[in-house]
Amino acid sequence: MKTPTVSQIGEDALVSEILASLPGGPRVRVAAGDDCAVIGAAEDARWTLLKTDCVIEGVHFTPETAPERIGRKALGRALSDIAAMGGTPAEALITLGLPGATEVEKVRGIYAGLAETARQFDVAIVGGETARTPGPLFLSVALTGWVNAGRCILRSGGRPGDGLYVTGVLGGSLAAHHLEFTPRLEEGQWLAKKEIPRCMMDLSDGLGSDLPRLARACGCGFALDRAALPCRAGSDGAAAVSDGEDYELLFAVPETRAAELETAWPARFPEVRLSRIGQLTDRETETLAHGFDHFAQP
Amino acid sequence: MKTPTVSQIGEDALVSEILASLPGGPRVRVAAGDDCAVIGAAEDARWTLLKTDCVIEGVHFTPETAPERIGRKALGRALSDIAAMGGTPAEALITLGLPGATEVEKVRGIYAGLAETARQFDVAIVGGETARTPGPLFLSVALTGWVNAGRCILRSGGRPGDGLYVTGVLGGSLAAHHLEFTPRLEEGQWLAKKEIPRCMMDLSDGLGSDLPRLARACGCGFALDRAALPCRAGSDGAAAVSDGEDYELLFAVPETRAAELETAWPARFPEVRLSRIGQLTDRETETLAHGFDHFAQP
Repeated sequence: MKTPTVSQIGEDALVSEILASLPGGPRVRVAAGDDCAVIGAAEDARWTLLKTDCVIEGVHFTPETAPERIGRKALGRALSDIAAMGGTPAEALITLGLPGATEVEKVRGIYAGLAETARQFDVAIVGGETARTPGPLFLSVALTGWVNAGRCILRSGGRPGDGLYVTGVLGGSLAAHHLEFTPRLEEGQWLAKKEIPRCMMDLSDGLGSDLPRLARACGCGFALDRAALPCRAGSDGAAAVSDGEDYELLFAVPETRAAELETAWPARFPEVRLSRIGQLTDRETETLAHGFDHFAQP
Repeated sequence: MKTPTVSQIGEDALVSEILASLPGGPRVRVAAGDDCAVIGAAEDARWTLLKTDCVIEGVHFTPETAPERIGRKALGRALSDIAAMGGTPAEALITLGLPGATEVEKVRGIYAGLAETARQFDVAIVGGETARTPGPLFLSVALTGWVNAGRCILRSGGRPGDGLYVTGVLGGSLAAHHLEFTPRLEEGQWLAKKEIPRCMMDLSDGLGSDLPRLARACGCGFALDRAALPCRAGSDGAAAVSDGEDYELLFAVPETRAAELETAWPARFPEVRLSRIGQLTDRETETLAHGFDHFAQP
């Protein structure tokens, strides 16, 4: 008898089941399930963040995508996860799966995009490998980063009544934003330093998938103020909830810090919109249209 | 005009060209080009090792390979690279590229093989991701490890006259060994602690490819004693040079330490053969049949 396929049970269910079976260790503070893993011994002044992220031709970019933009996106996605912990990125390794017929010029372009993005965010590219694949081109980026001990912002920790905030604008990202976004590293580090958010994550699968994940990690429900959703020009609220690939920060703030945040943010980040889009609640009050699930059946 | 493809120029040439363009950083002691990257600030008592390695269905295993063995091989290959630095592995992240039609039972089996191997070598699996791929199933493993500061064994450092040694037996690995090998972590750590080798690497592409790489990293040539090659039962010297996927250690030892090594080894590792297969020289004296180049044209 055939067992179900990953399309049939979906990514979230599959990942949750697997995570329970993985071996941990004494230095592991956060394992799978947050934006990054967090590693730190009791005596460490800094904790290490670890992240891997993969992009695949035909899924995350097309054969026509400019190679430099492929490299930029691949590293940018992992940087966005470091940002979501309030961390600073450090070293990257690149795994490039290449069909043998790939033009060398395309490989050079991908690496040029990687190297330029790495320089922009002060990341060292310290290795990786190329492997031949009979399938589509893919890049897997492994990225390290760090936070001061105890100073990373997890997905858990928010409480009922906390205000929900999101950076930037949402929706319509597939037109160009998904290849051009700036990971919110400065913003994440500033928020962590000020210790304003109780919890934080980055929006990659869309608010409709990611907000329920954040609330669930907090043991909360949520109320979304749809009229407050910051929509990209040409997008509407439905797109802001469902499109995905926003690479913005979503975080929850206690009422006691909300006024301070709303005053300090525009002074520090005048070009990055900040929107209060709802709050965490003590029970789930609505179901959102789903964001992107890689394995959802059509 | 079309530029050359990666098949046409080959993996080594492509990688070498790219490495020159990558941004580094002050903590980077060894970047791309060795078995692992090595990261360490001046004040660090331990240096961090970083490695990524990828296996792809149809290249490194077949659709019929038992899922547990796929997981075991994927992590084992990266562990072999940590061994080649004399290091101790620490945390792994797993990226799993899955066709939507993959049976869930296969994914569970792969993770069972990963988890069992991780437990065997005291590695924590701290995360990773699943991604849908329209191509073949692949796994990319990102692995961290550590050495005491200054105590890792690089590919460079060997000198003319040093004896060349290899662990285990070579050749014929595709029958079963490539799915069953034990990464030489204990052996690598013992060698590093005793500071016996001047340089070391693991044999993944075959002695015919890897020995010239080691010699080149040392600025040396080499003389291979073909009669001394340790061949797996059913293999011959040609297979030992060319087959690849041996996951044994290759290292060079100064004459002043050779007798000590040859006495101490069988007492410490009675079940692991150690063979002296030649020496580094001051000029390249022969060309070997190539080992495996993923991108070599047929």
